[in-house]
Amino acid sequence: MKRSSKKKCTVLFEPSGLKIQVPVGTVLLDAAHKAGIYLSSICGGDGYCGKCKVIIDEGQFQSKPTTLLTPDEIRQNIVLACQTKVLSDMTITVPRFHTLETSQILMDTNARRFSELAGEVREGVFEFDPMVHKIFVQMSPPTVHDHTADHERLYLAIREQIDAPIMQTGFRIIQKLSSLLQSCGYKVTVTIGRRGQTTEVIEVEAGNHCKRNFAVAVDLGTTTVVAHLIDLTKATTVDTEATYNSQINFGEDYIRRIIYAEENDAFDEMQNRIVHDVNNLIVTLAARQKVDLHEITTVICAGNTAMVHFLLNLDPTRIRREPYVASAGFVPPIRAAEAGIQINKRGLLYCLPSVAAYVGSDIIAGVLTTRIFTKKGIYLFADIGTNGEVVLGNRDWLVCASSSAGPAFEGSGVKHGMRAGAGAIEKLTILDNGSINFKTIGDTHPVGICGSGLLDTLAELFMNGIIDRTGRFNPAINCGAEYLASRLGPRLAGTLKWGSRLTEGDEGLQFQLVPADNNHHEIVITQADIDNLVRSKAGVFAAIRVLMESTQTQPEDLEAIYLAGGFGNFLNVRQAVTIGMLPDVPLEKIQFVGNTSVAGAKTVLLSRKALEAAEKIAKSMTYFDLMSHPGYMDEFTRANFLPHTDLSLFPTVTQSVVRRA
Amino acid sequence: MKRSSKKKCTVLFEPSGLKIQVPVGTVLLDAAHKAGIYLSSICGGDGYCGKCKVIIDEGQFQSKPTTLLTPDEIRQNIVLACQTKVLSDMTITVPRFHTLETSQILMDTNARRFSELAGEVREGVFEFDPMVHKIFVQMSPPTVHDHTADHERLYLAIREQIDAPIMQTGFRIIQKLSSLLQSCGYKVTVTIGRRGQTTEVIEVEAGNHCKRNFAVAVDLGTTTVVAHLIDLTKATTVDTEATYNSQINFGEDYIRRIIYAEENDAFDEMQNRIVHDVNNLIVTLAARQKVDLHEITTVICAGNTAMVHFLLNLDPTRIRREPYVASAGFVPPIRAAEAGIQINKRGLLYCLPSVAAYVGSDIIAGVLTTRIFTKKGIYLFADIGTNGEVVLGNRDWLVCASSSAGPAFEGSGVKHGMRAGAGAIEKLTILDNGSINFKTIGDTHPVGICGSGLLDTLAELFMNGIIDRTGRFNPAINCGAEYLASRLGPRLAGTLKWGSRLTEGDEGLQFQLVPADNNHHEIVITQADIDNLVRSKAGVFAAIRVLMESTQTQPEDLEAIYLAGGFGNFLNVRQAVTIGMLPDVPLEKIQFVGNTSVAGAKTVLLSRKALEAAEKIAKSMTYFDLMSHPGYMDEFTRANFLPHTDLSLFPTVTQSVVRRA
Repeated sequence: MKRSSKKKCTVLFEPSGLKIQVPVGTVLLDAAHKAGIYLSSICGGDGYCGKCKVIIDEGQFQSKPTTLLTPDEIRQNIVLACQTKVLSDMTITVPRFHTLETSQILMDTNARRFSELAGEVREGVFEFDPMVHKIFVQMSPPTVHDHTADHERLYLAIREQIDAPIMQTGFRIIQKLSSLLQSCGYKVTVTIGRRGQTTEVIEVEAGNHCKRNFAVAVDLGTTTVVAHLIDLTKATTVDTEATYNSQINFGEDYIRRIIYAEENDAFDEMQNRIVHDVNNLIVTLAARQKVDLHEITTVICAGNTAMVHFLLNLDPTRIRREPYVASAGFVPPIRAAEAGIQINKRGLLYCLPSVAAYVGSDIIAGVLTTRIFTKKGIYLFADIGTNGEVVLGNRDWLVCASSSAGPAFEGSGVKHGMRAGAGAIEKLTILDNGSINFKTIGDTHPVGICGSGLLDTLAELFMNGIIDRTGRFNPAINCGAEYLASRLGPRLAGTLKWGSRLTEGDEGLQFQLVPADNNHHEIVITQADIDNLVRSKAGVFAAIRVLMESTQTQPEDLEAIYLAGGFGNFLNVRQAVTIGMLPDVPLEKIQFVGNTSVAGAKTVLLSRKALEAAEKIAKSMTYFDLMSHPGYMDEFTRANFLPHTDLSLFPTVTQSVVRRA
Repeated sequence: MKRSSKKKCTVLFEPSGLKIQVPVGTVLLDAAHKAGIYLSSICGGDGYCGKCKVIIDEGQFQSKPTTLLTPDEIRQNIVLACQTKVLSDMTITVPRFHTLETSQILMDTNARRFSELAGEVREGVFEFDPMVHKIFVQMSPPTVHDHTADHERLYLAIREQIDAPIMQTGFRIIQKLSSLLQSCGYKVTVTIGRRGQTTEVIEVEAGNHCKRNFAVAVDLGTTTVVAHLIDLTKATTVDTEATYNSQINFGEDYIRRIIYAEENDAFDEMQNRIVHDVNNLIVTLAARQKVDLHEITTVICAGNTAMVHFLLNLDPTRIRREPYVASAGFVPPIRAAEAGIQINKRGLLYCLPSVAAYVGSDIIAGVLTTRIFTKKGIYLFADIGTNGEVVLGNRDWLVCASSSAGPAFEGSGVKHGMRAGAGAIEKLTILDNGSINFKTIGDTHPVGICGSGLLDTLAELFMNGIIDRTGRFNPAINCGAEYLASRLGPRLAGTLKWGSRLTEGDEGLQFQLVPADNNHHEIVITQADIDNLVRSKAGVFAAIRVLMESTQTQPEDLEAIYLAGGFGNFLNVRQAVTIGMLPDVPLEKIQFVGNTSVAGAKTVLLSRKALEAAEKIAKSMTYFDLMSHPGYMDEFTRANFLPHTDLSLFPTVTQSVVRRA
């Protein structure tokens, strides 16, 4: 059969109503992306993660056979978007779990944390001295007796107000300066930016506009991009917004995206997508707060090294390949427009420095936010995202490592895993009476489980004997009570309470957390999910062990542990110890600190001393490459148990298992 | 009569053979310019200077009536190009006095001065440290045990070789750095430029190219643009080239050009022309010396404030209008490409700083070259060009002023005046026996008189009594010998020897210096010429007086006087005193220093300490605005005599007049 390749089909996506015209034969996942609709996808369109399910309401299509859909789903016209080609005009329903309101992603909590953070600057940890600020400069116009040229006149006037031994001004500004100064009687607003020790005159405008100076702080997450609109004159967070990283269609983790970009020469495309995301966030924030884009003079970004490379279109290929190095760790401030970011056309884009290919500026931001680098005792910082990065140290030394343990706690690689947004189970308890209590973000019907919920789930399954120390479902809980009592004793016989919840699903054994009802699907956790979660936590713990062993740090030496990541609002830190992700220290020593990436970016934005500190941290931190570290694989293997092979490392967990048994 | 405005005519200019197509009705001066032919023109096409004479060999034209052509010239089909419209295809002969070989403009002498100057840098007045240099950087490639990012790796390696606390690199270079380094085994040539205290990585290239690093030093004259190609690795002048400033069709002095640009919104055009001139010089030098434009990494310019404004397209309008200020005195280095100058596309353009609207960077260059700013005694520096700028001072203080006395000593406003090029009379003596000795540049038949020749002419006319102290021709020299002897005594009767040389010309009385022969026109000096020359010298001397009076400097306090300008090779400094342009000091104290503008530019090019010195000079110098100075007009009036109203100011001149009488 021969078809004209030029025939176009219109695909309508509900409930958003977004439409797109695509050629016949276009893969539905691509069509969705082009329409601006983000579908979950872990495998990057390879057809094995089964995340990109959509419902075909109308139209002709061609789908590859897959084992990832149940017969029921197939009857309901559910398809995998990445395995389906468009053959005619179509109407598609995008299930709600794909299209969570991104603006609900933990914004309230974050906003709270950021106002605290701004407090940090105000309290004098760092002097308030924003990277870009505006000053009102009034000069007396030249006369025949005062013939200083306009350019020097401006510099003299600026230096009356600020300390700026080294000043730079763009040539286009100098060219237009004289007519501008004359037009407004030599009363101008000067926008001043910092580039290292150099002070740049970013803009000169007629009149006084000092009260309107905004910036955007961005956390460039592999999964989620978060932006905060900051009023630089007041050091306050005006508004926040988040979106999914639209590179996600090319792979859920950044290694896969680098491979995709390399194989398809798609580095420009990768940059375009992340820049597009950042621009969308900026435009949304600006429109909502009635801020003109011109009034946004700064964008500051923190993120993993690969994401910063994508944003700036730096070569990221050796991040994934020996010798695992970045193109640039310290990127000097550039004009935001040079990267395609649409703010004030001469506004600056700062990226926080990174330490290594696998320890990015988000981690520097974390160290900055938690102030480990100022402290005397030994502190541990762990940021659990797509990777798990760990920092150990104090004001005298800092070591760090990154475990590529996968994004299980971000909800990826977990059947009903999801990001921390509305409808996500963020808290879960399995009660002795067999029932399960949970709380969702936004208190809506549950649609999935986010990081903190997954931590609870894993810990609760283990503490209740539903899974054993290897993470395997206890087969006994499905057998007769009599048999169980005889074989397992009274403790394990108790698992009977949950016997009916353990079923054989499409992916093997699965445990039902929430039953289906008329309008909602059931929520389960599968054996594969548990394996992924255990591997993730094992990676983090093994990294912590390597750093502690290398520095001869004992758990009792730790003054505190800071846990960062997009887990959810109510992370139960005890559970992080229960599953063996964090060392067994007194719980009051563990503090959940949330998204420290954007918090650190904001600190730098508000104080140039903080950027100096960040650069010092990045330079002084020692990076341990775990892949080439002789002890890491052993530690990882030993940590692949709940809580660990060596129970003596987790005395309080052992004690509490014994108590419950 | 109605003509289609679209009809085009071809105008052929001989002897160059250059052709141009122009619409019917085009003014011939404009056609010549478009064809790349520069015709002398003082009035900017207003039809009153009579300089733009050409011969029409063939074709129809329409000329406005003029009194500036003799009946003989009209018979020879000579027209004023600015008053003539093209009506058909035409063939034009451009007389030789327009088309002097510009490359002959004093190049030998200048080249000598510049090699001395390079010596100055080598001798340690300024440390040799060029504004832009290349270093060969070899790095060990990253390994899993040495994971420093490429950008930081490069910085570390650069800092092993040079002191560069503050470094900047263009974003495009950072973006391509990784693949470049990998392609060449981490062995690169880094081109390093200085922007104030900041070190800029201008370029990174694979392999070692350190031996090829060139720069061009430019003197942006109102009349002539001079360029020197410098080998930065050896601090030597490789070649020199000069051209006429092609803005000249818009007026011979820059005030007229500013007016033209303002009235015709032609600032872009003004920039295009001067940039075009500079580019032409660069291309010519590069082609001749087999230098790739890419290997030219720096252009450095000195010139009057207006010319620098035109080059950079800065607003020059208030240079000519109250309060007489520049847009910028200190222009930071910019990328040459930003101004349209075609060298290495990331190469830098430096402009030396200026003091005021009428004291430009050429004067700073002069102070730098003469080292006045390092000296203990009091020194005087006078640069005679289109304007006459004067600097007085030493290492403790510097004062300066500019007299807009007109470009008479550059040959403008003088009937047979010309620039110092082949065929120019550069030396002239009137002998007691009535004959006149002269020497021309290139020892060819004389076609005109350049600055040094005009100085000689004026002094000789005066010393021989042909003109009196007011500059008027002595009417007696045309009368009978008897009458003269009875009326004037033996001294003035001597003027009889030259009686036949004084005739009534088109412009009044004129004195014949060289008679016509079959192939050459006569060369005369007119009463108007003399008036112009006297006004010029009076302006310079009045400026000197104002500065000396203001600082209570007596002539005997002067350690030396440096006279700069494009006079000619053999300037007789005694004559500058004779006519009363310079104070009457012992002749050994007066030194002719030539084109100090390009010399100073070159000094800065070869040593960044020299730029710091130039900036310090520009900042510390006190500018006297003569127009608003209460004493200036008086001084000017008093100086409008030969040598001066007050003969006591010129004791040696008075003595020698008395001796001859």
